[in-house]
Amino acid sequence: MQPAQHQTRLIALDWGTSSLRAYRLGAHGQTLELRALPCGVMQLPEAEAGDKSGFEAAFEQACGDWLRAAPDTPVIAAGMVGSRQGWHEAPYLAVPIAVDSIGASLSTLRNRQGQLIHIVPGLIENAMLPNVMRGEETQVVGVLRALAGNDRSDELGHDVLIGLPGTHSKWVQIRRSGAQSQVAHFDTFMTGEVYAALCGHTILGRSMQASGGDADAGQLAFERGALVAQTAAGKAGVLSTIFSTRTLGLTGILDGASQREYLSGLLIGHEIAALKTMLRDQGRHPSQVMLVGESGLCERYTRVMRTYGFGPVEMVAHATERGLWQLALTAGLLQHA
Amino acid sequence: MQPAQHQTRLIALDWGTSSLRAYRLGAHGQTLELRALPCGVMQLPEAEAGDKSGFEAAFEQACGDWLRAAPDTPVIAAGMVGSRQGWHEAPYLAVPIAVDSIGASLSTLRNRQGQLIHIVPGLIENAMLPNVMRGEETQVVGVLRALAGNDRSDELGHDVLIGLPGTHSKWVQIRRSGAQSQVAHFDTFMTGEVYAALCGHTILGRSMQASGGDADAGQLAFERGALVAQTAAGKAGVLSTIFSTRTLGLTGILDGASQREYLSGLLIGHEIAALKTMLRDQGRHPSQVMLVGESGLCERYTRVMRTYGFGPVEMVAHATERGLWQLALTAGLLQHA
Repeated sequence: MQPAQHQTRLIALDWGTSSLRAYRLGAHGQTLELRALPCGVMQLPEAEAGDKSGFEAAFEQACGDWLRAAPDTPVIAAGMVGSRQGWHEAPYLAVPIAVDSIGASLSTLRNRQGQLIHIVPGLIENAMLPNVMRGEETQVVGVLRALAGNDRSDELGHDVLIGLPGTHSKWVQIRRSGAQSQVAHFDTFMTGEVYAALCGHTILGRSMQASGGDADAGQLAFERGALVAQTAAGKAGVLSTIFSTRTLGLTGILDGASQREYLSGLLIGHEIAALKTMLRDQGRHPSQVMLVGESGLCERYTRVMRTYGFGPVEMVAHATERGLWQLALTAGLLQHA
Repeated sequence: MQPAQHQTRLIALDWGTSSLRAYRLGAHGQTLELRALPCGVMQLPEAEAGDKSGFEAAFEQACGDWLRAAPDTPVIAAGMVGSRQGWHEAPYLAVPIAVDSIGASLSTLRNRQGQLIHIVPGLIENAMLPNVMRGEETQVVGVLRALAGNDRSDELGHDVLIGLPGTHSKWVQIRRSGAQSQVAHFDTFMTGEVYAALCGHTILGRSMQASGGDADAGQLAFERGALVAQTAAGKAGVLSTIFSTRTLGLTGILDGASQREYLSGLLIGHEIAALKTMLRDQGRHPSQVMLVGESGLCERYTRVMRTYGFGPVEMVAHATERGLWQLALTAGLLQHA
């Protein structure tokens, strides 16, 4: 028999558009095993009879053996798996919302083996321009768990800003009052996806080189780009300033490799400059900024945020699995633990 | 023998990236014949021996017979044909610049038949974010010729704003002093190309329908999008507001066809809002706005400019051939006319 701390207590799935990550978690929420499969909601394995679009097959690949070895283990899943195009729709919860309500609102489905699967709902903000997230709410819960675990709740002020840079960056404002946390507001920036579309499908990409540039030159180009949004010329906005990627190449100032870095800095700079303006207009002064995401990208954002006068920025690792564990706890799935 | 007014006086080529338009112009600059060929600088016919990348063959297709019928006719060409990737580089002229100087600065090349071809230079503005144009300078000259021809120079104030919406929109500020006009400043917005990249290569395009929507619904969606940039939410900038194209679809407010119109309005709205801010910051108040371009697109811009409080907007047709004629005149190519 396995020692208690190695027993499976929760199977946690981070099931997005392009990938599926399965975590086997132990008694304290620690990761005992991790699998990464290319079985996102939009690229599932071929469906067999009785399977809806390949979800059953992907689930079996991800954790079928884990469940056979520990049949009573609860299963929780977050991400696009709960969207309308997913396995089972978990309706959006409306922001503002108490963070604890998320874990209390899981949807459930039974797969054809009869296994109960708990699905985390996404969040929606019904503003003039509505905003949605799916998967990031779980990372937010994970960040707050990490903060609580640090036992630093008191030294932190009431407002926390959580940034989740990526294909679509999310910036989530958390209002804290005692032990309670509330998702107060969030914004989305399509920076990563716009960057890829500009590099791959516009004239800006034609003179770029993928790599091979001098690292220092690349860093300088990134910083040059990051500054643009705060200059007078930056007021023209992204649709205009991006053209300088090309003209700084034409005029011999940026080589092909540097143009790519410059555009990256320019777009992130516009994002952070806009974020700063909005926070100011809303009268918010987050006392702490937490970033979750790929570490290289988080570093880029940290550099730009420093440029734009943000205070200390901290990176949080393992936010997804921490969030899934916390949500399962709140939902009462781990009460026998 | 042809009557004098039907004799060829100028062969004028508008030679861009993807297409080549050849005009046979008569004694008063009127178009006697027009040919549109898919022989842009980036898609030339296959090169024969002695030809540089197919330019000779394209030129022959465009106007070889016209020149054989009227061998002494001068030839002028504008657009990407004069770029570094073109047939013969015509170096950029630096803005600010007197409009008459453009025609006085043509570059020349001889093709293998010995035919002299005059090439119009582009313009560059060496600002912190440099800006360039090639081809649009000719349309600007054409607009100013149309204005002069209207004999309304006096009723117009000193500042004219010329807009050239398209893949890359240009906004050109003209300062007028007596009979002299100066290109004072210009801006570029990659609105058209960004729109195409977003529709074709990001998640925003996935739920769009190309057409088939209700025309009134489409118009309302366009106007809804155009207003975004002037709202509080619009301060988040294009990278953020574009995501509402998707969320307004998810929440059932915009159908697939309307999403396309909404995004078009949203991007043009951001462009015009930024233009307005910049003009205000520069203390410029153009007394007249002229638009050159595809008429449907010019109408979209006109509607948005009205929304953003611009004065009367006038569309100018045939700006390219008028500009080529005027430049040939200034260059002395038509002195025997």
